[in-house]
Amino acid sequence: MIVAAMLPEFTVTHVVQFSETDMAGIVHFSNYFRWMERVEHAFFRSVGLSVSMAHDGRHLGWPRVSAACDYLGPVRFEDEVSLTLRVTKVGGRSFSYEVDFTVVGRPVALGKLTSVCCVLTEGKMKSIEIPADVRAKLTGSPARTTVA
Amino acid sequence: MIVAAMLPEFTVTHVVQFSETDMAGIVHFSNYFRWMERVEHAFFRSVGLSVSMAHDGRHLGWPRVSAACDYLGPVRFEDEVSLTLRVTKVGGRSFSYEVDFTVVGRPVALGKLTSVCCVLTEGKMKSIEIPADVRAKLTGSPARTTVA
Amino acid sequence: MIVAAMLPEFTVTHVVQFSETDMAGIVHFSNYFRWMERVEHAFFRSVGLSVSMAHDGRHLGWPRVSAACDYLGPVRFEDEVSLTLRVTKVGGRSFSYEVDFTVVGRPVALGKLTSVCCVLTEGKMKSIEIPADVRAKLTGSPARTTVA
Amino acid sequence: MIVAAMLPEFTVTHVVQFSETDMAGIVHFSNYFRWMERVEHAFFRSVGLSVSMAHDGRHLGWPRVSAACDYLGPVRFEDEVSLTLRVTKVGGRSFSYEVDFTVVGRPVALGKLTSVCCVLTEGKMKSIEIPADVRAKLTGSPARTTVA
Repeated sequence: MIVAAMLPEFTVTHVVQFSETDMAGIVHFSNYFRWMERVEHAFFRSVGLSVSMAHDGRHLGWPRVSAACDYLGPVRFEDEVSLTLRVTKVGGRSFSYEVDFTVVGRPVALGKLTSVCCVLTEGKMKSIEIPADVRAKLTGSPARTTVA
Repeated sequence: MIVAAMLPEFTVTHVVQFSETDMAGIVHFSNYFRWMERVEHAFFRSVGLSVSMAHDGRHLGWPRVSAACDYLGPVRFEDEVSLTLRVTKVGGRSFSYEVDFTVVGRPVALGKLTSVCCVLTEGKMKSIEIPADVRAKLTGSPARTTVA
Repeated sequence: MIVAAMLPEFTVTHVVQFSETDMAGIVHFSNYFRWMERVEHAFFRSVGLSVSMAHDGRHLGWPRVSAACDYLGPVRFEDEVSLTLRVTKVGGRSFSYEVDFTVVGRPVALGKLTSVCCVLTEGKMKSIEIPADVRAKLTGSPARTTVA
Repeated sequence: MIVAAMLPEFTVTHVVQFSETDMAGIVHFSNYFRWMERVEHAFFRSVGLSVSMAHDGRHLGWPRVSAACDYLGPVRFEDEVSLTLRVTKVGGRSFSYEVDFTVVGRPVALGKLTSVCCVLTEGKMKSIEIPADVRAKLTGSPARTTVA
């Protein structure tokens, strides 16, 4: 799809830590969600954003609407996992991406996550339209391509 | 559905720990997957199984095929979360369930998880047909109903 | 010591979760610190306090000054761990306790933790004298004994 | 001290993840212990060892005897933490080190950890004398200096 092809990708690597394994000798499945967040936040930083940031005097956050992961094979201690985030949709208020997990080129998992843009006020969250400048950075619009 | 109605349900409660919160002041989304596993393992124990058990001289385990969670509202420190596991399918080699997360009766999340029955041998995992006696316990067949 | 003998004790139990184990087949050592916090917070609740509470219009918290644990033997999946907190000192601004970790009466670890009472203001922490009513609850002074 | 000065040091950096923070807006204290392990394992790799390795047909592991951390100031989301491991003692069966935690040169914590060298057999652990070649690598003896 043409539009999808234009949306950004971003990759980080992660060396599996001992504390991430379980007694089955493989990485505990819950940790893939922490890794998804890790590449997401690194992507945000790469385009000049933070997932916890002030914007026009408001505090923006991105609570999760849904998270999913399909597991294709085990990942073990000291494996170097490549995490590639692909933006799949930037909706009015929501942001969706997928993450390809690979080890030495072998796909090991596929993650999917959707967050919603919120203003945080005194511990309360209220969804808002994604501000235009934030949207431009998430979609990799022309304004950003010289940076990436 | 008649069959589904006969499949087991099981509930545990969990008081949110401080270490499960994040700087947004709510529970980090990855912890819901640990809680899903918690009620799953308690369910296994309730029917006389363990997720890490010897069976006919083999070591059985249940690696995850897929995990997903929809988030309906925030959960906070010291909330008492009710986790109700509903078995949704016991396939030839796989086991699927959903978890309803509620706080004081308010739905806060819906989780879905599918695992596959495996024999573990020297760190390798190989899927197998779920043994008949294990299947009977997971499906709450007549042999079990007097226990539950 | 007479004074120490009068300080409160408090016990909770914890069933070891699968996600708390590591590939060595035992509980990862970092989890003992989460368990120490768990019994601490349950103790706070038992005396009518919370570790994150409003007090005279201020938000009180208890950041850690030091934490330590000696490990006496392994703890495994599904072990029921008994966690007994013993208050060892309630200083001017600090609160110290030890935790005896046992499994079926067998000592498996000894933890030590010291926190300091702080006021949280706009993300900044400032240590303060422990308020008298909070101190009375932490020390199990007569005012509290009818509650416990 | 002359001997101490000859023992190895090793540094890694870590960018604080969102999931490592808690509702107080700072890193949860238990994570410092995971970070200590992280630099320890990276140090092991840097000298050609692994904390989970075959050695003369045996499986060696390093269960913890004691762990401690003093906290000097808060660490926050996206801080880059420098973790410097200093080997403090390589005993007959034990290995001890300290970790200096700094953020932009500011000391934020001091960790201490002691492990014991064990052979793992069928889930049982038995302490052994640290093998000579492993000891040489941990102490940074001449045999190693060309590698580092």
